[in-house]
Amino acid sequence: MGQISTPNKKNLIIVSGRAHPQLAEDVATQLGSDVLSSENRTFANGEIYARYGESVRGCDAFVIQAHSYPINEWLMEQLIMVDALKRASAKRITVVAPFYPYARQDKKGRGREPISARLVADLFKAAGADRIMSVDLHAAQIQGFFDGPVDHLFAMPVLLEHFREKLNIDELTIVSPDMGRVRVADIWSDKLGAPLAIIHKRRDPRVPNQVSVHEIVGDVEGRVCLLVDDLIDTGRTIQKAAEALKNAGAKGVVVAATHAVFSDPATEVLQSEAIDEVVVTDTLPLPDSKKWDRLTILPIAPLLARAIREVFDDGSVTSMFDGQA
Amino acid sequence: MGQISTPNKKNLIIVSGRAHPQLAEDVATQLGSDVLSSENRTFANGEIYARYGESVRGCDAFVIQAHSYPINEWLMEQLIMVDALKRASAKRITVVAPFYPYARQDKKGRGREPISARLVADLFKAAGADRIMSVDLHAAQIQGFFDGPVDHLFAMPVLLEHFREKLNIDELTIVSPDMGRVRVADIWSDKLGAPLAIIHKRRDPRVPNQVSVHEIVGDVEGRVCLLVDDLIDTGRTIQKAAEALKNAGAKGVVVAATHAVFSDPATEVLQSEAIDEVVVTDTLPLPDSKKWDRLTILPIAPLLARAIREVFDDGSVTSMFDGQA
Amino acid sequence: MGQISTPNKKNLIIVSGRAHPQLAEDVATQLGSDVLSSENRTFANGEIYARYGESVRGCDAFVIQAHSYPINEWLMEQLIMVDALKRASAKRITVVAPFYPYARQDKKGRGREPISARLVADLFKAAGADRIMSVDLHAAQIQGFFDGPVDHLFAMPVLLEHFREKLNIDELTIVSPDMGRVRVADIWSDKLGAPLAIIHKRRDPRVPNQVSVHEIVGDVEGRVCLLVDDLIDTGRTIQKAAEALKNAGAKGVVVAATHAVFSDPATEVLQSEAIDEVVVTDTLPLPDSKKWDRLTILPIAPLLARAIREVFDDGSVTSMFDGQA
Amino acid sequence: MGQISTPNKKNLIIVSGRAHPQLAEDVATQLGSDVLSSENRTFANGEIYARYGESVRGCDAFVIQAHSYPINEWLMEQLIMVDALKRASAKRITVVAPFYPYARQDKKGRGREPISARLVADLFKAAGADRIMSVDLHAAQIQGFFDGPVDHLFAMPVLLEHFREKLNIDELTIVSPDMGRVRVADIWSDKLGAPLAIIHKRRDPRVPNQVSVHEIVGDVEGRVCLLVDDLIDTGRTIQKAAEALKNAGAKGVVVAATHAVFSDPATEVLQSEAIDEVVVTDTLPLPDSKKWDRLTILPIAPLLARAIREVFDDGSVTSMFDGQA
Amino acid sequence: MGQISTPNKKNLIIVSGRAHPQLAEDVATQLGSDVLSSENRTFANGEIYARYGESVRGCDAFVIQAHSYPINEWLMEQLIMVDALKRASAKRITVVAPFYPYARQDKKGRGREPISARLVADLFKAAGADRIMSVDLHAAQIQGFFDGPVDHLFAMPVLLEHFREKLNIDELTIVSPDMGRVRVADIWSDKLGAPLAIIHKRRDPRVPNQVSVHEIVGDVEGRVCLLVDDLIDTGRTIQKAAEALKNAGAKGVVVAATHAVFSDPATEVLQSEAIDEVVVTDTLPLPDSKKWDRLTILPIAPLLARAIREVFDDGSVTSMFDGQA
Amino acid sequence: MGQISTPNKKNLIIVSGRAHPQLAEDVATQLGSDVLSSENRTFANGEIYARYGESVRGCDAFVIQAHSYPINEWLMEQLIMVDALKRASAKRITVVAPFYPYARQDKKGRGREPISARLVADLFKAAGADRIMSVDLHAAQIQGFFDGPVDHLFAMPVLLEHFREKLNIDELTIVSPDMGRVRVADIWSDKLGAPLAIIHKRRDPRVPNQVSVHEIVGDVEGRVCLLVDDLIDTGRTIQKAAEALKNAGAKGVVVAATHAVFSDPATEVLQSEAIDEVVVTDTLPLPDSKKWDRLTILPIAPLLARAIREVFDDGSVTSMFDGQA
Repeated sequence: MGQISTPNKKNLIIVSGRAHPQLAEDVATQLGSDVLSSENRTFANGEIYARYGESVRGCDAFVIQAHSYPINEWLMEQLIMVDALKRASAKRITVVAPFYPYARQDKKGRGREPISARLVADLFKAAGADRIMSVDLHAAQIQGFFDGPVDHLFAMPVLLEHFREKLNIDELTIVSPDMGRVRVADIWSDKLGAPLAIIHKRRDPRVPNQVSVHEIVGDVEGRVCLLVDDLIDTGRTIQKAAEALKNAGAKGVVVAATHAVFSDPATEVLQSEAIDEVVVTDTLPLPDSKKWDRLTILPIAPLLARAIREVFDDGSVTSMFDGQA
Repeated sequence: MGQISTPNKKNLIIVSGRAHPQLAEDVATQLGSDVLSSENRTFANGEIYARYGESVRGCDAFVIQAHSYPINEWLMEQLIMVDALKRASAKRITVVAPFYPYARQDKKGRGREPISARLVADLFKAAGADRIMSVDLHAAQIQGFFDGPVDHLFAMPVLLEHFREKLNIDELTIVSPDMGRVRVADIWSDKLGAPLAIIHKRRDPRVPNQVSVHEIVGDVEGRVCLLVDDLIDTGRTIQKAAEALKNAGAKGVVVAATHAVFSDPATEVLQSEAIDEVVVTDTLPLPDSKKWDRLTILPIAPLLARAIREVFDDGSVTSMFDGQA
Repeated sequence: MGQISTPNKKNLIIVSGRAHPQLAEDVATQLGSDVLSSENRTFANGEIYARYGESVRGCDAFVIQAHSYPINEWLMEQLIMVDALKRASAKRITVVAPFYPYARQDKKGRGREPISARLVADLFKAAGADRIMSVDLHAAQIQGFFDGPVDHLFAMPVLLEHFREKLNIDELTIVSPDMGRVRVADIWSDKLGAPLAIIHKRRDPRVPNQVSVHEIVGDVEGRVCLLVDDLIDTGRTIQKAAEALKNAGAKGVVVAATHAVFSDPATEVLQSEAIDEVVVTDTLPLPDSKKWDRLTILPIAPLLARAIREVFDDGSVTSMFDGQA
Repeated sequence: MGQISTPNKKNLIIVSGRAHPQLAEDVATQLGSDVLSSENRTFANGEIYARYGESVRGCDAFVIQAHSYPINEWLMEQLIMVDALKRASAKRITVVAPFYPYARQDKKGRGREPISARLVADLFKAAGADRIMSVDLHAAQIQGFFDGPVDHLFAMPVLLEHFREKLNIDELTIVSPDMGRVRVADIWSDKLGAPLAIIHKRRDPRVPNQVSVHEIVGDVEGRVCLLVDDLIDTGRTIQKAAEALKNAGAKGVVVAATHAVFSDPATEVLQSEAIDEVVVTDTLPLPDSKKWDRLTILPIAPLLARAIREVFDDGSVTSMFDGQA
Repeated sequence: MGQISTPNKKNLIIVSGRAHPQLAEDVATQLGSDVLSSENRTFANGEIYARYGESVRGCDAFVIQAHSYPINEWLMEQLIMVDALKRASAKRITVVAPFYPYARQDKKGRGREPISARLVADLFKAAGADRIMSVDLHAAQIQGFFDGPVDHLFAMPVLLEHFREKLNIDELTIVSPDMGRVRVADIWSDKLGAPLAIIHKRRDPRVPNQVSVHEIVGDVEGRVCLLVDDLIDTGRTIQKAAEALKNAGAKGVVVAATHAVFSDPATEVLQSEAIDEVVVTDTLPLPDSKKWDRLTILPIAPLLARAIREVFDDGSVTSMFDGQA
Repeated sequence: MGQISTPNKKNLIIVSGRAHPQLAEDVATQLGSDVLSSENRTFANGEIYARYGESVRGCDAFVIQAHSYPINEWLMEQLIMVDALKRASAKRITVVAPFYPYARQDKKGRGREPISARLVADLFKAAGADRIMSVDLHAAQIQGFFDGPVDHLFAMPVLLEHFREKLNIDELTIVSPDMGRVRVADIWSDKLGAPLAIIHKRRDPRVPNQVSVHEIVGDVEGRVCLLVDDLIDTGRTIQKAAEALKNAGAKGVVVAATHAVFSDPATEVLQSEAIDEVVVTDTLPLPDSKKWDRLTILPIAPLLARAIREVFDDGSVTSMFDGQA
């Protein structure tokens, strides 16, 4: 005897930090659900407080937060929300960080640097996260920074769908704005079957004091250039690349990126005449002041919602991307 | 043979975050040393970068940071600095957090809350900290949140030295501003041999709708009241307590606290006529705009420096406080 | 293909150490279940052996043990029972320790002391416990000592129900037996809307050699004093407090505490004429030799059983206490 | 609101390394299932690659691998398969290692040795294994090397069933081939009620230079000797024991062992005339070149399949062995 | 500059629990040192308190405790002492447990049992122990239960030295009191070049109801039998073995064991006429009431002291035992 | 008193696996030391055994192993050697893996893949490694896979020194053999101030069935092409790149790589007429059968020895590379 037995259920809940509540709501709506209420506050001295409005015991919880400016606030809020879930007996906790924070500090470029992207993975783990879900990691190796499952989603299907109707593949050249981002351009080139060009910065050997040359490796004259990257921060690299392409005879320059970080002066420089269109997703919140007519923002919530549903149902995220992820 | 053998040395280094560089410099000066140079920057999107200017291999490193507003920035900066030290082969890393961040969220007051003070200890551990040094923890139990040594220092000797010359013990009553802080007042009462009074907030049983009564438990008429607490945040509790004491016939009201958080409107309300003097230490930075004539700021650097020296020399921190700590 | 699929069930089991088997049986009865049989023995040299009589695979196991004298035996027995559950593939293991062992050593009061309450949490974790359930922790911060969920239950509803019928709130004063326990008295004062008094021990400043004075802070003359604490150990503090209250003109003295540790000479001194009634719960076993006529023992099993049921059903323990816990 | 709720299912999957695919298929067949497809390859430089052909999200996965020669390849392959399961969100991962690798290095026989059997347990844990299932561990203490449940199965019922029909217990003597393996022989002796003998190697005290004597402790003349061990590696110890037994007048010599490691020259020496029959199981793969007429190979798959089913169903593995295991 | 540099020193300290203070003092004396003072107390409810009388910062600490009855008290005391050392910044902590507690529960003999010897290793680790030193582990595999260095010392040199003068090797037979302890007897047999005999318990196949037969495997008639084991608990197995040997014609019976657990009725039954002498070491404390004329107690402190010195000096413990350990 | 105090020393030892003993000897020679003797064996069933010939207590140990074919053997040997060091009380253990094993499986390229490079870091950690030293990691992010310091050395200074005398920078173009390795080429281009070209493989959009085109992005006609990569495995990519370059008019093709994996058919295809010279280091052992006249092998031991010395002396590895590493 001695046993009480009941059938087991799974309960999915979506909770949200304060960085980008609209995104969490969009995801919940896609799932036919609501964001679970929580009381999140920042005290006068900057300390953050969070408390859930309903029981989360035994739940399969997804903690959605966007890591926009001020990024450390939102990261800390998410850590605190994970801690509260853990202590309230949530069964499984998935950190949903569409734009992975500190992704660019993914290695020691020089001695005595931190590897902050690994640190962030460790912080999530220490707080109690079981899993991470993210979109277009700056480096795919970041998956390996976390000791557990990472669902790495790709925004490319979302972006591709937008461009397939608009662009003539035959006149298209994919361009990487610098050497370090060639990987992204290579994937686009492969998917679209379009040729590739790269903007290459290097020291001029004939000039002694570190003057750098911007050279375009590959042919762009008369081509429509699709400048691609995983993120746009201040926009300066993109602006200079676009101008160089136009100077080199490019017929058009379109920019595609997943994460619209848009730190100053991005909004200004991306409106350069050299850039015909900028297409991003809403993994990060964009206030109206950072929008303009030639900017297109595609919704990421459908992708996140479908992935969350697959995770919850023990389905397949891989199948969403033809075997990748 | 196969062995190369050399005598072993210990090297102490002080590194500092950007919250309160003066404090780190004061500590280094006390130690007859310098703060080791580091390049700390905040990028446009809020991500923090840190890199040490010299080798830290094999060092006994003390990472000094004040956790003032914006507290999450400074906490994250310190975590990043610890990560960089760990990866640069520092031998031992001590987090020096004179004002322990999130100390007031040290338990679940209600269900589904985080225990952020424990989370902070876990984050320090995850980043690579071996030890913590702090001053006047809001709850002494926070020592137990960290899985390793915590050097818990007391500012009381510093504060006491200031008051011993100024106050007449015979007319002194120690007052706790509320029930939850009685522990601090009790220690002062014991050290000075002065009687104790407490401000007690409770619901009035005769009034149905949650009206609270501020009653003074203990005698304060004609006494000089020393209102003590470990920290002053917005100052409102202190202000109301001081006014209640003066209304109850107190001859004078002096306030002593270790940590001057001074969130708005602290600077304003603490200048209330009911308060004759406020005495704090500089565990947190105070800009000139938050200083006034009846505010006394005592330096904490000598205490920190002596403790760091004892830790480095395998001496005794306990001996600094007559067996406590 | 390759998959075999079945619906998932949850099975609750209650297992019990030998310290207080009646409590476990009471809990099981409340749940409509039985205590799962186990063979627990102590060998001649003091080593403890435990083995379960039935399969525990995949179970949600609650290991009930009371931490009465000899406390280390019962702690070790519980650790061994947890280890056996872990190795026998129990799915989730909750340590039920109504009286948390070593709770009073929750900080370093002086240098070179242990923090045994944290150690105990670490030992439970090392043995394989996933969760802890306890009643009226000596310090709420102990929740933060465990890296996982802690269900902190309050006996106050049980005790309050007893007193509400018996005592006239209008003539009641809540009394804390010393400064360190004011927190408990404050909660009672708030719940009942009754005024507060505190027994305060301090050095007499006029006498050089450490003579301490027991002063009563607050008014007690003509009042019925409810002396409250979380636990009663030797009873001496309570006895002295009661006598001081009667000397100060108290009309009656009633004592309420959750945990009846009752080490010698508690049984004797609590029968002092100054104490009119003592009310405790049975979180710890009390042999008949430790009972007397003015002692009331309230059953804690209904509270534990309800909490266990909520935990098992992914319900809400918080809801049992109006948002607290 | 805010919750999406579905009933929970459990899915069992069997995956297999390349060391002994037939065993995994036999187990799956016994379970009425299939081995889940995976792509396992060894690159030119020896690195192993593994990828699952179907989603394993939320599954209860059993990773079957035999640790035959080259044992490090197969161990590494299994670790890689566990890592891939962990990162693909399998719910629970059980390493099925019928012959536990490095079991004989279970202690430091001399200073500066590794304890490789513990190392292997740590490697499984590091890769992400939750549980281990093994057959006839060389030392039962190896269970304690893993921090989690170990299902320790016994092949004895399989072997006993074979012998019970064939051997006359009255003329049987159980023989341990050396002092270190007496434990196994003792269990056989107890199960069959047969007397015991031991082959004992020691230095001859009358001869100075380390000459060892093989003496038979116990009576074997005219008896049918059942030489038992958990494993047979090179076979030399068994061969010498069998010859010593025949020389001492044994009527017959039969050998029983669970694990047929059969390193060179086992196949040759075990065909010695002194050995009448060798009986083993197929925990390790045996190519036809390592089989001969007096070798009997009993299938282990039914035992593994039943244990896996009990584990999956939260049944009882212990009940398979009358309380042991 | 920023660095303060000093030469590094190592400081060895010996601290002791209350189980066997004489042993710690003997070790300290051998080392030319003293036991560091500590205040160890047991409170009325059984909780243990420990505090060190001097700073232990940066020390290489050896915590000596004997695990005699009541064993759980002494184990818990040692864990608390380790915790206090860790929190007081000791550099390295070695648990010295000459008789390893719970060593006999080193595997699951049946399902649903604990592996308490592994649990003990985990508890030491959780408390903060870096290393373990023990003497004659019941099973050498216990070394592998701890995730770190274990110094496994052998008392055999101490015991051998005693016997070499007293016994005539030519008439000596080494006897194992049961099958499970053959390993120890085998080592003695090898060291002394003496033949071996074993007491074997088994079911009589001709009698249905589990009647066991004690048979002596090997020759003992006219021999002086040296009964060896690692420990003697109640002494009953030894007594029966001795009587069986005398009945079988043994000329003399001498008993050697490292650990004198001597639970009741050991003191009585070991004084059997069948036993000529009992030789043990003082790894466990023996009160005068447990001593008699034919009992010889050899001091273990010189062995421990030498090993501690080697550990402290980065010398070689292995060299103390000709390559073993 | 209670303390024994001695000055502290550091002892450096070099131990070596069996994959590339010459490399370890070269390193030791550079350091003016010897490789510490160890007994490493492979048993008949493939299990590896290792034991150190001298005490390693308190040492700063560097475990050098090359991860050539059969890579899993050498990885397992190194793990076993680390375990033995840990259990023998080495103070600090640095894994020296000049060619990091499984570096190319550094992310999930598709779903349900392992991240074996992270797994390897976890295995090293589980075995007891404190630090890792490696040369030219395939992806710099692998540093972040290990929870501790990684000394990432660059062979470029060694290779550059060789080329600086031989090549005319003015006629040089750096070429990346495919898109994924552009990072390496970019660094060379920057260091030498030479232009860059890239071999780009993509699907031809005009041909339906996945035919890939090798196009050269950048100018190579009349240039001396320096094809650079971190490793050469089968050599096929390099061979095809070289031929494409020659076909495109390149004047010369020289190949530089750090790690000469040289799996079949590397030795053959690298002798293609299109390749004028191949320059590698000896991070991996190369038998004479894999050498030819146009192959230059530069010694890596001086670099490793210098880095080990800096690590041991708490110097600066960063300074060896002008701030990088």
